[in-house]
Amino acid sequence: MAQRHFVKYTFLAVAPEWRRLPAAERARQKAEVVAACEDFAERHFLRTYSLVGTRGDCDLMIRTAAPTLEPIHEFHVVLNQCALLGYARIAYSYLSATKPSPYADRPQPLAPREGQDGRYLVVYPMWKKREWYRLPAEERMRIMREHIEVGRRFTGIDTNTTYSFGLDDQEFVVAFDCDDPLEFLDLVETLRATESSSYTRSETPIFTCIRCSVSRALDALDGERAVAAVEELARERR
Amino acid sequence: MAQRHFVKYTFLAVAPEWRRLPAAERARQKAEVVAACEDFAERHFLRTYSLVGTRGDCDLMIRTAAPTLEPIHEFHVVLNQCALLGYARIAYSYLSATKPSPYADRPQPLAPREGQDGRYLVVYPMWKKREWYRLPAEERMRIMREHIEVGRRFTGIDTNTTYSFGLDDQEFVVAFDCDDPLEFLDLVETLRATESSSYTRSETPIFTCIRCSVSRALDALDGERAVAAVEELARERR
Amino acid sequence: MAQRHFVKYTFLAVAPEWRRLPAAERARQKAEVVAACEDFAERHFLRTYSLVGTRGDCDLMIRTAAPTLEPIHEFHVVLNQCALLGYARIAYSYLSATKPSPYADRPQPLAPREGQDGRYLVVYPMWKKREWYRLPAEERMRIMREHIEVGRRFTGIDTNTTYSFGLDDQEFVVAFDCDDPLEFLDLVETLRATESSSYTRSETPIFTCIRCSVSRALDALDGERAVAAVEELARERR
Amino acid sequence: MAQRHFVKYTFLAVAPEWRRLPAAERARQKAEVVAACEDFAERHFLRTYSLVGTRGDCDLMIRTAAPTLEPIHEFHVVLNQCALLGYARIAYSYLSATKPSPYADRPQPLAPREGQDGRYLVVYPMWKKREWYRLPAEERMRIMREHIEVGRRFTGIDTNTTYSFGLDDQEFVVAFDCDDPLEFLDLVETLRATESSSYTRSETPIFTCIRCSVSRALDALDGERAVAAVEELARERR
Amino acid sequence: MAQRHFVKYTFLAVAPEWRRLPAAERARQKAEVVAACEDFAERHFLRTYSLVGTRGDCDLMIRTAAPTLEPIHEFHVVLNQCALLGYARIAYSYLSATKPSPYADRPQPLAPREGQDGRYLVVYPMWKKREWYRLPAEERMRIMREHIEVGRRFTGIDTNTTYSFGLDDQEFVVAFDCDDPLEFLDLVETLRATESSSYTRSETPIFTCIRCSVSRALDALDGERAVAAVEELARERR
Repeated sequence: MAQRHFVKYTFLAVAPEWRRLPAAERARQKAEVVAACEDFAERHFLRTYSLVGTRGDCDLMIRTAAPTLEPIHEFHVVLNQCALLGYARIAYSYLSATKPSPYADRPQPLAPREGQDGRYLVVYPMWKKREWYRLPAEERMRIMREHIEVGRRFTGIDTNTTYSFGLDDQEFVVAFDCDDPLEFLDLVETLRATESSSYTRSETPIFTCIRCSVSRALDALDGERAVAAVEELARERR
Repeated sequence: MAQRHFVKYTFLAVAPEWRRLPAAERARQKAEVVAACEDFAERHFLRTYSLVGTRGDCDLMIRTAAPTLEPIHEFHVVLNQCALLGYARIAYSYLSATKPSPYADRPQPLAPREGQDGRYLVVYPMWKKREWYRLPAEERMRIMREHIEVGRRFTGIDTNTTYSFGLDDQEFVVAFDCDDPLEFLDLVETLRATESSSYTRSETPIFTCIRCSVSRALDALDGERAVAAVEELARERR
Repeated sequence: MAQRHFVKYTFLAVAPEWRRLPAAERARQKAEVVAACEDFAERHFLRTYSLVGTRGDCDLMIRTAAPTLEPIHEFHVVLNQCALLGYARIAYSYLSATKPSPYADRPQPLAPREGQDGRYLVVYPMWKKREWYRLPAEERMRIMREHIEVGRRFTGIDTNTTYSFGLDDQEFVVAFDCDDPLEFLDLVETLRATESSSYTRSETPIFTCIRCSVSRALDALDGERAVAAVEELARERR
Repeated sequence: MAQRHFVKYTFLAVAPEWRRLPAAERARQKAEVVAACEDFAERHFLRTYSLVGTRGDCDLMIRTAAPTLEPIHEFHVVLNQCALLGYARIAYSYLSATKPSPYADRPQPLAPREGQDGRYLVVYPMWKKREWYRLPAEERMRIMREHIEVGRRFTGIDTNTTYSFGLDDQEFVVAFDCDDPLEFLDLVETLRATESSSYTRSETPIFTCIRCSVSRALDALDGERAVAAVEELARERR
Repeated sequence: MAQRHFVKYTFLAVAPEWRRLPAAERARQKAEVVAACEDFAERHFLRTYSLVGTRGDCDLMIRTAAPTLEPIHEFHVVLNQCALLGYARIAYSYLSATKPSPYADRPQPLAPREGQDGRYLVVYPMWKKREWYRLPAEERMRIMREHIEVGRRFTGIDTNTTYSFGLDDQEFVVAFDCDDPLEFLDLVETLRATESSSYTRSETPIFTCIRCSVSRALDALDGERAVAAVEELARERR
């Protein structure tokens, strides 16, 4: 069986005063973070996302995965070495791990997959009501199958659910890769009518994360090189 | 069919220490934000509002809309280039999209309309109870029709509901254009007695936003040029 | 019929570092706020209160009223011109309006009354449960009459209820003028046993506000001239 | 009948940067607060407590009482004159008043008593469920008698309940003098099984306060003179 | 019978600006905290943990235990002497005490045990629903026995439950030593289906704490010596 992985979602918010630093200093600080991310990505899974324009309480998300907790701890120690962390704080943090799903009808991958990335990743922590866990297994299977059926009608969306029981506050971290956020909106609204939805205790905050390279996500913090980046983005999207 | 739009509500709060900067520096910073807004407004929908005197936790709201998420992301990147963002934070942020309403008896516009603006825009995020979504469609239609009937008795109020399922924390962002906030107060109190009201889970915070040009909304932050602005306002209101 | 009024409650909290400024600078900043308040009070209703010693999260409350929203907006723009607002933030803010009560047996004034002030004003935002609004009108009348009956037994207390539906988060802002806070405490405890009390969803935070002139309320922020003020207070109370 | 008293609990938290000031400046600032407390204590009830090591969100508690609100207001104005208040904020604040208990079988004192102090004071704000207040008086009496009976089995604990209805957010402030916190822990756990416990709506935060002189409570903020203080403490405890 | 102990969990978060200090100054500040911890550990139980990479809202946890409250108070006074506390705040704080469990089938130790440490300690505050405490003793015993049975199937996990009734906000502090967080995740998910789980009112926040020496936990704050530390860690884990 494939090895389970720890998956960590780290949401950074830069302090407004960071934007008052000289541009060269900001560029230097960004380069340090790029180097830290590239170093980790050589041996492990790492993705970066911008939240500029989609949220107001965080700016940048780094998603890391590894088969043990140590590399994730070490990566965050290295982040603490970066001068940017003298001006940024972790606004949200979700620790989780992969686990075979009891509801899937085929084996799910336990390690993050290459080539599965969408233009957007929607992420949220989730808690189910305690009543859910006391239902008989067949009952839960029946309810989840209906939920999965609805999801399959929306073909552009790929689910990555990880588990946080006993590791962090939430029970699950749910993450969806998609290219069209409107399709995802329609899926979530459709799911409201399913039976499984009535067993949800909480599923906020919801983060619409824009997939981009770590340097572009960092450039979005102060708009430096943003014009160039925007042109590049436009080219890619064509 | 008309194209759906993303609609973003960005509420800014300036730090008290911003008011300690020299007046010329504040004027320069405001001019940058005016330029950023005017640039976006050339190609897309943009409206600005002041919350000075109506709320204590935010000062200024920028409402943007575009058929894709990219221009909204790029606009907020450009905002991050403005020196004012070294002293301001996003106090509230609501991302949403337009969608045809299943309850309206005529097609609703999916893009923001020119010429519809009121003197005030009341905005709030909304969540319905999960029970609502499990009611049969006809039942929901019956309940919403009663709700809409009550609304029609208050002729000075124009509704702009957008959808946030899976994009952001709330399910809906409800926004009302009106010229008389007292008429709106009376409408909301009257709606409390309708059946639809009992399916509301949350509809706060509620923002009474004063429609004004971006420069006037910025001037309200430090009262510079406020005397002139107040005279101009008085002239317009006559 | 008398004209309805907007009523605004603005609670200010000064940052601790304000107290580190030179005394002359603090005195100058206080004089600016006094001037702003006096200017508004020439044409409109304005009252000031100190919360020093009764709350820990705000220091000063300014209560303003006007028949339209514009003067209240403009007053807060002028406040933003004051240097003190470079060191103070609005800790709580409640926007509301007067409205004829359906439960009163005689017409209630729709504008703030002169000569009604007590030594203390107790203020709190209130929400009722949704069930309340779905009761038949006669039922609500019966329950409110019992509530009003209990209130009348406490003769030293004057009620000023305003409405916030659709203007701000809360449904009502309730404000009581009284000279003896212990009588008010006894009233509130007595009301807990009434039927109306079981329809209350929330009625906190509760602010015990000490009525005083704007200059005395400002002097309480740093204790400058406090000895003199305390003597003056003692003289008045005799 | 004895005169009722207002009782105020003021919890201070010093900003971390206060600890960066020169030691002489800190000593001078502490002396000012000692003087303010001693001055008030000449005419009124005042006790001080340290929360260093028992809480993380506040450092020092000052408990004052007086037959009217004015001296308590004035004391906090004088506190605002102290330079320490340029670096400290009021983290929690509870205003309350004494009142004869309807459940006690002998008259309770309405003024704070000398000589009743324990080594520790456990304080918390309390709210009961609204259902409680609608029970018949005999029913409430029966339930409270059981509660009081359990309390009497724990002889080292002295209760000081005050009332906050309409004065502050909470309904009651409950305060227990005791010498052994473990006995108090056992009492609270035992009370969980009583009927009265099921009518509690909220009783947090809970503050375990260490009774000490104002100068020792201030010394605990930066550990200056702490070694001497610790020796003194050890001597007293023998 | 063994003596009961007070157990204190202190979670520190360093301010981002601490990382802007010169490296030598940071090293000096860390040395002070190491000395304070070593001094306390000579006479009492003390363990340190890093939360870098597992949480975003705190960085370092210090767990202390002593038979009375005084040494714990004094230790935190000494911490306040450390220059680091001019840049760090206590993000979370849990005070508790040991107590014989009524459900265990053999006596539980009342003092922290040497040699029991796992690589990780998972800690969380817990509240049970009030209904739990009103169940008959045999009923509670039956439910807890089932809970304990499930726990025993996961052999790598050691439980340390302490009691906070009347000492602090929570009722219990639950702490689990383990070497494999994935085994703990599986245990917690399995426990969701037990009857005892339905009596839980709250059990968040959940802290996954990485056991390490105080100097390594401090080094993780700014990544200084982190490379060396990481190598050392890797060596130990082999």
